[in-house]
Amino acid sequence: MNLILLFHEDFINGSNRVRLQGRRLKHILEVHRARPGDQMCVGLVNDKIGKGLVTVLNKNVLEMDVLFDQSPPIKLPLNLIIALPRPKVLSRVILNASSMGVKNIWLINSQRVEKSFWQSPRLLEENLFKQLVLGLEQAKDTVLPQIITKKFFKPFVEDDMSEIIEGTRAYVAHPNTKTQCPRDVRHPTTLAIGPEGGFIPYEIEKFTQYGFTPVHMGDRILRVESAVPALIGRMF
Amino acid sequence: MNLILLFHEDFINGSNRVRLQGRRLKHILEVHRARPGDQMCVGLVNDKIGKGLVTVLNKNVLEMDVLFDQSPPIKLPLNLIIALPRPKVLSRVILNASSMGVKNIWLINSQRVEKSFWQSPRLLEENLFKQLVLGLEQAKDTVLPQIITKKFFKPFVEDDMSEIIEGTRAYVAHPNTKTQCPRDVRHPTTLAIGPEGGFIPYEIEKFTQYGFTPVHMGDRILRVESAVPALIGRMF
Repeated sequence: MNLILLFHEDFINGSNRVRLQGRRLKHILEVHRARPGDQMCVGLVNDKIGKGLVTVLNKNVLEMDVLFDQSPPIKLPLNLIIALPRPKVLSRVILNASSMGVKNIWLINSQRVEKSFWQSPRLLEENLFKQLVLGLEQAKDTVLPQIITKKFFKPFVEDDMSEIIEGTRAYVAHPNTKTQCPRDVRHPTTLAIGPEGGFIPYEIEKFTQYGFTPVHMGDRILRVESAVPALIGRMF
Repeated sequence: MNLILLFHEDFINGSNRVRLQGRRLKHILEVHRARPGDQMCVGLVNDKIGKGLVTVLNKNVLEMDVLFDQSPPIKLPLNLIIALPRPKVLSRVILNASSMGVKNIWLINSQRVEKSFWQSPRLLEENLFKQLVLGLEQAKDTVLPQIITKKFFKPFVEDDMSEIIEGTRAYVAHPNTKTQCPRDVRHPTTLAIGPEGGFIPYEIEKFTQYGFTPVHMGDRILRVESAVPALIGRMF
């Protein structure tokens, strides 16, 4: 937790003082080992970052006087479309995408996504939200990415794709294709990443039909959890 | 498992036939859902890759006739030095580094590495070996990376560093530094990545004293598990 993310409900009656309990209090006590008088890096959700001066800290409650004076880091101009990964991996992928500054995340279906993945409690809004927050706290960001889930491939492509990719260059990661994934991309981008085993030919065809370029990162097939940071690391 | 990694002890009496049980059999039955007559992608450890023709397959045993005719993918010209991560993360980092084609991995100590991490059973050779193998199977590689553990920072730097970095360009990932991490590096490279909270100033000083350039990947501080693929994705 390199930044303590604050929400409007943390504030005491419209003052500049916040009161924290639960996970954040525990982390500040056990990991930061803070004391009254310490300054902490804080951020207001979807708003500025700044400093919090610890005024009260015991095992039940933390209070800080906060001042926000800096903009959060800039987001990547990236729409990320991911075939829904297996539940355990999903949480890590969302956390890492959030910490890397992805703006919008679509979790979509694909032939090779196991149906059971869509039933996972990890897909519940509160769990996705938790991973987004952990990612922001890691990267000292405040701006929550948006997650949109699309349970059906064809309607997603036909109804939503044109709008998503408008004004962006669109790529779909696909091993055994001709074009290398571009580097140091400085324009708005949409990037689609398939499931274990990859998108099926029909799906790749649909992507290309909508203007996506299939790109690869070499001969090696990566797990989605490393493909996401590796592709983003290369492109931005 | 995009490739089934074979070891010399899998072969039946010096023939070109292998017999598998245990984890690989289970995976081939349950995930690949293979049948007799199917061809599988196989590789011989530290040697070539090729095809295996399934001749016998039941819940107790798999037999394949194998032929090796292709070179494994090229390794990255990369020495990776990582401050020992927490045990749960360690396994994933090793797997991903292995799948990305890292040749040599040093796990080192640093002020901010918790002492207990060095006691973890995940550091046992058999567990590291398992992660390396999973990484190779993922990336269709056969060549086992080397892992070297160094429990003391200063002797590591003073006794080993010169030899490690000889003939390479050396970088240490460090947020809040001036130089951007280079892209599309085409020369032998050594890359050092710190623990949660980063290397301490003394450690960074030691690295720079030995010719490492501190480099950053933007304002965002990433977890080691995403920093490793993000940095490798950018550099290679």
